[in-house]
Amino acid sequence: MNYKMTVQYDGARYSGWQRQGNTGRTIQGKLEQTLSDLLETPIEIQGSGRTDAGVHALGQVANFQTEAPIPDFDHFLLRLNKALPADIAVVKIDIASPRFHARLNAKEKTYRYLIWNSPIPNVLQRRVMFMVDTPLDLEAMKIAASKLTGTHDFSGFSSDHTKKSTIRHLRAAEVNRNGNQVEILYTGNGFLRNMARIITGTLVETGLHQRTPESVQDILTSGDRAKAGFTAPAQGLCLMEVFY
Amino acid sequence: MNYKMTVQYDGARYSGWQRQGNTGRTIQGKLEQTLSDLLETPIEIQGSGRTDAGVHALGQVANFQTEAPIPDFDHFLLRLNKALPADIAVVKIDIASPRFHARLNAKEKTYRYLIWNSPIPNVLQRRVMFMVDTPLDLEAMKIAASKLTGTHDFSGFSSDHTKKSTIRHLRAAEVNRNGNQVEILYTGNGFLRNMARIITGTLVETGLHQRTPESVQDILTSGDRAKAGFTAPAQGLCLMEVFY
Repeated sequence: MNYKMTVQYDGARYSGWQRQGNTGRTIQGKLEQTLSDLLETPIEIQGSGRTDAGVHALGQVANFQTEAPIPDFDHFLLRLNKALPADIAVVKIDIASPRFHARLNAKEKTYRYLIWNSPIPNVLQRRVMFMVDTPLDLEAMKIAASKLTGTHDFSGFSSDHTKKSTIRHLRAAEVNRNGNQVEILYTGNGFLRNMARIITGTLVETGLHQRTPESVQDILTSGDRAKAGFTAPAQGLCLMEVFY
Repeated sequence: MNYKMTVQYDGARYSGWQRQGNTGRTIQGKLEQTLSDLLETPIEIQGSGRTDAGVHALGQVANFQTEAPIPDFDHFLLRLNKALPADIAVVKIDIASPRFHARLNAKEKTYRYLIWNSPIPNVLQRRVMFMVDTPLDLEAMKIAASKLTGTHDFSGFSSDHTKKSTIRHLRAAEVNRNGNQVEILYTGNGFLRNMARIITGTLVETGLHQRTPESVQDILTSGDRAKAGFTAPAQGLCLMEVFY
């Protein structure tokens, strides 16, 4: 049977989603170990994609194949969540079609980046936000974001140049303010390594008037990482949803 | 000059608000040390009251007297918040009347208790909520809460029996659900040690049908702590506002 899970995690304690042999504390590794213990058979899971060290998820998707019976999903979820550490939760489990593959079948993903834009730090939400103490010019950020949507070669916004293709379709990059909280929602068919964080760093520099909204065009055209902004911290980023 | 500050903190790393000689990591101690360093003179602050180890605040109030000049409040707040650890922030500072005393002049306080009521843990908000995995009967909790509002001897809901008077006026105890999140707001003229947490534990037991809403009457009448519910964990409690 092929099972599809929706997974949430606080990435702070982990060196990312992807298992790294027997070293490093990863979310995939922790889930595989816990599922293998509960089902009493070795389980290997496929995530929709990696998330970096420190990045969170509220809607990561993963699948696994097993012949081990899972008679009652609600009961299994309770047992699974009690066995998992407090910073990982499986919120949903379903039977998937035999050919469903969480990574290969993913059509789009939405990432959220949260910024706390105030000279006063946010003490209770500091672990899920990036604090920017100078007022951000949202209009400038929105103009820059609009220039990034569409189909582009995003290699200038990536820290990994081993990929065959660096062309991605970024369908939406929405920048909104709610009081001191600035939320950026990215939806696209694929994200290169650090892409959401480098775009965010570039948008933040735009919002601080350290660069013009027009400057993002040159990053796309040149593919030069050095022309883009800083890599915004992992803690502000969260994988919200994977679309199939 | 007498200064009034509004203070926010994540209580997780601290053994409570109140300074304990030179031992223990307290919020008052950390604030006094940081203010003394910045103002280059010993500063002693008065909080509106203690909060227990692990309890948070978004609206704690404290005052301090000093002759040291603070010429620019915005600039001082920036310096102060950069010097404070990430889990303590001063959000406001004002000149108070010479006789203002944060504890003696406090008329009412509002505390919030947050419960995450779902079999699926909340991974990102777990540090500011108490997780209850069985559905709570809000109607039963509301009935019990309504029996606690008013002027009562709350000694049955306190872990400290050294106070001269244990009579307090609890003006409001509102229980509301927003999806999986249950919020209880307590407003009263004073709270005995652990009172908000023991009331919460009692309300949770009521919501789980482990006791009847009517059973709270006997706790008030007898003043017997053993008849009340468990002390709900500190992490769910937050001091929201102090009224003067």
